[in-house]
Amino acid sequence: MKKPLAELFGTFSLVLFGCGAAGISGITATGPAGIGLLGISFAFGLAVVVMAYAIGPISGCHINPAITISMLVAGKIKAGEAIGYIVAQFVGATLAAGLLYLIQSGAPGFMMKEWALGSNGWGPGYLAAYNTTSAFVTEAVMTFVFLLVIFKTTSKWGNSSMTGLAIGLTLVLIHLVAIPITGTSVNPARSFGPAIFAGGLALKQLWLFIIAPIVGGIVAAIVWKGVFEDAVKS
Amino acid sequence: MKKPLAELFGTFSLVLFGCGAAGISGITATGPAGIGLLGISFAFGLAVVVMAYAIGPISGCHINPAITISMLVAGKIKAGEAIGYIVAQFVGATLAAGLLYLIQSGAPGFMMKEWALGSNGWGPGYLAAYNTTSAFVTEAVMTFVFLLVIFKTTSKWGNSSMTGLAIGLTLVLIHLVAIPITGTSVNPARSFGPAIFAGGLALKQLWLFIIAPIVGGIVAAIVWKGVFEDAVKS
Amino acid sequence: MKKPLAELFGTFSLVLFGCGAAGISGITATGPAGIGLLGISFAFGLAVVVMAYAIGPISGCHINPAITISMLVAGKIKAGEAIGYIVAQFVGATLAAGLLYLIQSGAPGFMMKEWALGSNGWGPGYLAAYNTTSAFVTEAVMTFVFLLVIFKTTSKWGNSSMTGLAIGLTLVLIHLVAIPITGTSVNPARSFGPAIFAGGLALKQLWLFIIAPIVGGIVAAIVWKGVFEDAVKS
Amino acid sequence: MKKPLAELFGTFSLVLFGCGAAGISGITATGPAGIGLLGISFAFGLAVVVMAYAIGPISGCHINPAITISMLVAGKIKAGEAIGYIVAQFVGATLAAGLLYLIQSGAPGFMMKEWALGSNGWGPGYLAAYNTTSAFVTEAVMTFVFLLVIFKTTSKWGNSSMTGLAIGLTLVLIHLVAIPITGTSVNPARSFGPAIFAGGLALKQLWLFIIAPIVGGIVAAIVWKGVFEDAVKS
Repeated sequence: MKKPLAELFGTFSLVLFGCGAAGISGITATGPAGIGLLGISFAFGLAVVVMAYAIGPISGCHINPAITISMLVAGKIKAGEAIGYIVAQFVGATLAAGLLYLIQSGAPGFMMKEWALGSNGWGPGYLAAYNTTSAFVTEAVMTFVFLLVIFKTTSKWGNSSMTGLAIGLTLVLIHLVAIPITGTSVNPARSFGPAIFAGGLALKQLWLFIIAPIVGGIVAAIVWKGVFEDAVKS
Repeated sequence: MKKPLAELFGTFSLVLFGCGAAGISGITATGPAGIGLLGISFAFGLAVVVMAYAIGPISGCHINPAITISMLVAGKIKAGEAIGYIVAQFVGATLAAGLLYLIQSGAPGFMMKEWALGSNGWGPGYLAAYNTTSAFVTEAVMTFVFLLVIFKTTSKWGNSSMTGLAIGLTLVLIHLVAIPITGTSVNPARSFGPAIFAGGLALKQLWLFIIAPIVGGIVAAIVWKGVFEDAVKS
Repeated sequence: MKKPLAELFGTFSLVLFGCGAAGISGITATGPAGIGLLGISFAFGLAVVVMAYAIGPISGCHINPAITISMLVAGKIKAGEAIGYIVAQFVGATLAAGLLYLIQSGAPGFMMKEWALGSNGWGPGYLAAYNTTSAFVTEAVMTFVFLLVIFKTTSKWGNSSMTGLAIGLTLVLIHLVAIPITGTSVNPARSFGPAIFAGGLALKQLWLFIIAPIVGGIVAAIVWKGVFEDAVKS
Repeated sequence: MKKPLAELFGTFSLVLFGCGAAGISGITATGPAGIGLLGISFAFGLAVVVMAYAIGPISGCHINPAITISMLVAGKIKAGEAIGYIVAQFVGATLAAGLLYLIQSGAPGFMMKEWALGSNGWGPGYLAAYNTTSAFVTEAVMTFVFLLVIFKTTSKWGNSSMTGLAIGLTLVLIHLVAIPITGTSVNPARSFGPAIFAGGLALKQLWLFIIAPIVGGIVAAIVWKGVFEDAVKS
């Protein structure tokens, strides 16, 4: 019962810090310059680093349904527990997005721009306006690489004290590439929370951020089992 | 007797590096671009990382009255020692703010802007002009998350060599979100030092940066004791 | 057989994250500011950090023909295995560059600028327009320093858990200096992949990014063997 | 005999990466935005992180005469060895500055600006034009804090695997505050190298960057011996 609670707290924190940094501090009109794409990338990735050391020892720190499903395919978590994890992840992400909406509504002239809550998207009007193919390929491939790194660093030959750092930095890297394309999701729950409150295009385009990361994660599980896991033993 | 001295040095360093970076290097008019909100966030957070490894083994490196009070509520420090810690934290922060005032007065055309000493605040004229509700909620929630991470990473199942890094990075994350709202405090001593020298609005608004972080810290202590601490044993 | 596969995956990831960040997120016209030279530097360097912990235990994580050749000169890898490594590195880099070309072609008004795929180069029209001597000296010296750090941190007296971090941060540092000069290669495979798809000047200037890093790496192997390796024993 | 060689290589690398990043990549007119004060701060600090893991096991990685003199006062190094260290540090810094001059002279329209080689300075025409008192106080206090962190993290109760990281991050913090004031030295050798090639004001103002850091370092050694070192035993 503590494990889903840890997942809820972890996903809440990921969305609070990642989407909060994007919407509140990405661009600033007064005082020092906003954090830009570099700061947003660090916000999402370092949130995973921190959560890996905070809740990792309780739940394994998935905080991402694509990771939980990939772990399920790889036989590293049971179906019943996986469902509890995924529900908790969606609840945590939604609570954080709601809190961010509440906080941001306290700014003068607050307008819900495409990316005001850190919503994901693509196409005309969304950041660099990439097309659907680029968006889907990017989300699927990035989740694939992300999961392969996770499988490798958490396997028996991984370096346990640096594992959380390596996984979180991978999410920094994914954001450093993909924000202009999709805002970067690789995580259905992280896209769901903001979309619920942003509505409009964010909600319409939500399907891609559920399907593509799950596809990437499942393929990674299969490649890991078929190709690399043996390398540990041999 | 060495413990309060370590807390004084730690809080002095936190304000020297964090508030110094904000006031001196946040925006620059000549030469390379200022460090912006991203650099200010790293300054506060990395100062905690460094102090965790430097004075952590002596005093536990609270360098924040909200942390000391939360630890008191959680039964991890005694009342008498907590008072010594808190006094040392306020003295250290005030010394650093005074030093920063001295140094900055040596720049041509130095004017005490709202955030020149890294002062906290909110409302019209302060960065993105968020309202009081947003400011209070942000400070309380961020301190709550901060303390939960601290309780988790310093509990028996934490990874001791990475603990200081995880806690400091959490402060980076909090700043990446909250600077446009309040300048980010989550630490009554860090707000007190600059307010004493900045006066005006910074002093008038000081109450929020004392109350909100303490509220967040106390709630975190209660949630930790009631919900998560058992997870370690079971 | 798993080792070259790990090298292929590692070099693929290095180019995907490093060149992807440069071409896609280096400059942005809408939304938050692009990641700039600082973000690009972190992308390349953190990719090495992550891969060191992910594939390091399998193949040693060279993901760079200049490193493999330097290791060969220093007697730390056999010629047959080195050839497999180098082929895998070129294949991985080329696959990643092709994927980046595919993804970027989905952006409206995509034009192949000099550095759109993170291509290396120098001279008129390329970033700060440094001359050939500066380009060659920079690439050779930077690879020399890079390899000396690698030999030192991976020797018996290195700190194994921090080795991957130290090596990756060295690549961050190299990029922080050298991007305006050559875009920073120190890695023939990393230059080869983008050049194949960018063609033109990138392909014409590829020779320098093959020769200079290899020269720097060979000199480093000789200096390590002749000067520093003894320091470990004495 | 290997120890001074390690110090030479370490100080060479510090100046190559730190001053190189400042002069070559601090501001860029074409392509992605320059690294700014944040990137320069990371360049100097991460260079120390990397060198701590690369040459730390050989020489202790001082790469700074103010550190060597402070260690001498604290009785942690002998006078004869200290002289060898300091000579090596000045030679390494000068070689790196010469190499940077050579490389930068290959850029069209290269002009030796105040900070083109990462030279230190203060007053009218240098960055934010702080006065002499601010410059001296900043350099002395920052070196004092730097050395206290070094004594604490390298004492018996320090965490050895994170020590290099904590010390290097302290140098990042010092730069995040002090670049607009003095360009940030806290290291006589790091100021000497560029001043030799820059001449003019950089050479005239060199005295402060030799005296102030040494004063700060000596006071830190005395405070450490008198106040904090006992804390380890009691």
